[in-house]
Amino acid sequence: MESIYIGIDLGGTKMLAAIVDERGNMLARTRQETRADRGPVDTIERMKEMAVGLLAETFASPAEYALRGIGIAVAGILDPDRGNVVLATNLKWENVSLARPFVERFACPVQLLNDANAAALGEWMAGAGKNVNDLIFVTVSTGIGGGIVSGGRLVLGASDSAAELGHISIDRHGPLCACGNRGCIELYASGSSIARIAREEMLGGAQGGDELMRLTGGYLDRLTAEHVASAAAAGSAYAINKLAKAGTALGLGIVSMIHLLNPKMIVVGGGVSRSGPPLLEPMREAVRKYGIPGMVNGVTFETAKLGEDAGAVGAALWWRYADLPVSV
Amino acid sequence: MESIYIGIDLGGTKMLAAIVDERGNMLARTRQETRADRGPVDTIERMKEMAVGLLAETFASPAEYALRGIGIAVAGILDPDRGNVVLATNLKWENVSLARPFVERFACPVQLLNDANAAALGEWMAGAGKNVNDLIFVTVSTGIGGGIVSGGRLVLGASDSAAELGHISIDRHGPLCACGNRGCIELYASGSSIARIAREEMLGGAQGGDELMRLTGGYLDRLTAEHVASAAAAGSAYAINKLAKAGTALGLGIVSMIHLLNPKMIVVGGGVSRSGPPLLEPMREAVRKYGIPGMVNGVTFETAKLGEDAGAVGAALWWRYADLPVSV
Repeated sequence: MESIYIGIDLGGTKMLAAIVDERGNMLARTRQETRADRGPVDTIERMKEMAVGLLAETFASPAEYALRGIGIAVAGILDPDRGNVVLATNLKWENVSLARPFVERFACPVQLLNDANAAALGEWMAGAGKNVNDLIFVTVSTGIGGGIVSGGRLVLGASDSAAELGHISIDRHGPLCACGNRGCIELYASGSSIARIAREEMLGGAQGGDELMRLTGGYLDRLTAEHVASAAAAGSAYAINKLAKAGTALGLGIVSMIHLLNPKMIVVGGGVSRSGPPLLEPMREAVRKYGIPGMVNGVTFETAKLGEDAGAVGAALWWRYADLPVSV
Repeated sequence: MESIYIGIDLGGTKMLAAIVDERGNMLARTRQETRADRGPVDTIERMKEMAVGLLAETFASPAEYALRGIGIAVAGILDPDRGNVVLATNLKWENVSLARPFVERFACPVQLLNDANAAALGEWMAGAGKNVNDLIFVTVSTGIGGGIVSGGRLVLGASDSAAELGHISIDRHGPLCACGNRGCIELYASGSSIARIAREEMLGGAQGGDELMRLTGGYLDRLTAEHVASAAAAGSAYAINKLAKAGTALGLGIVSMIHLLNPKMIVVGGGVSRSGPPLLEPMREAVRKYGIPGMVNGVTFETAKLGEDAGAVGAALWWRYADLPVSV
């Protein structure tokens, strides 16, 4: 009989479920659209069906496995002690009891956790950060977020809100962020910012964006960070410059993270990170140039390995994490 | 028979020793000059004598107490596993075996720890941060440093170098710091920077520094942050403005710390923090203005309570810390 865990990553547009074994191997996975418009009862029902379906396709009978726990990753404000989603704006959920239906159906412990922390847990325990006890997982996609592992423990903070990595400021005189701060790295290096900056510059008459113009068919309002990455890959000096500026800003923010947390590894993931060297080399260069040598020299940079599965795998692994011995 | 712990804070100019009981109460303390010029053998001998003396003055006989452990706080690069001081520039020590002589003399476990982490541990377990599991201890003195407690654990980092709080940048275009970065808060808000900025401005012809001129007897090269604090207390608008700028910079750095770590409390200590409201009000104002409301609203600010004893008390309490149960 095999000990297994189920993780579900409940996102605004898709939900992913995975079965993970004791060693962190993913035995099965599935995904479907969230369709949050149908309401929480419907969504929760389909989440349970996903889990049941995965078990049925993986094991010939319930005698073959012992389900040790379920973890559910959600973007939003959670009350993990009560198993409730307090507020998830992307789902339009408010005060939804999420853990209980799973406890009743599967008769095992159920934990809710923040989606970024779940992904960090996944990359740490089963992805790029295996065997490293101090790492920062940075996701660069539409926004910038992530999670922190320090001394073999997730850094959750007083209200489970730690690791707002996108809102590290690098310039007190920089543009105003929606968060209230100025000069947050999210304003320079997130996917939406990379696209916005290029769009605004080109609308303002900046030269060199021919490739971007071609890729968007001339509709600059459709411009995305993926277009910028494609243009850079095709050799556009203008696009390469945009990514370099984003990477430098990201690197400057990472310097502050390193000085505060002294990690051994930085794991970079998220769609925008797939822009590759045009973004990541300037990022690393900024870290080398501006970080305290004794601290940054010991840091390795790794690419996230689990892709979109990180949240589901990490949520599943919560229960192995909770059993880990702690050293001081 | 009472369980007790001994902590010794070995600084470049003074050493402090304290006996602490199970509940974190300081039973006795003593201090003397370090006299590092006499070399490590002499210094270590006097450290042992301090501990022996404290025990003799506190207890009538060894039958009255059980010494459970000794902690030694040192500013420098340490190898806690081996009990060695790798490099302590202020002591001119290199590869000094520090734990072993204490193990041999006192027959109890001995732990070396970074002085800033020891002070954070002290303020957390026996000072301003009792009963709080997520706090940041910021010391503002000649430089800026501190320690981080997250989820009831000290954040030490991969090489015990975490919490370089003074080297959080708030301005990528700011002045160059000795650490290699630009715009570190230490360049604006440390004691030496507050003094340097006022000195340079006044030498450059800035008006309004009459009180500072009077306090230094006209010798601006003698100007310290204490003079600026005194002038501010005496109502000097110029000095008040200098402290306000320092406080704002400090607050901006604390915003990044809060966004990364989501603490419940910020404990502020160090000599410069005794400047009081002229420094601390602008600091809190910057946090309120630039922090994510949901994160900063939950943060309380406290003044450090243990003063210069924080390091010795925290070092002593290491052994109680090491025995703490850990929750996830």
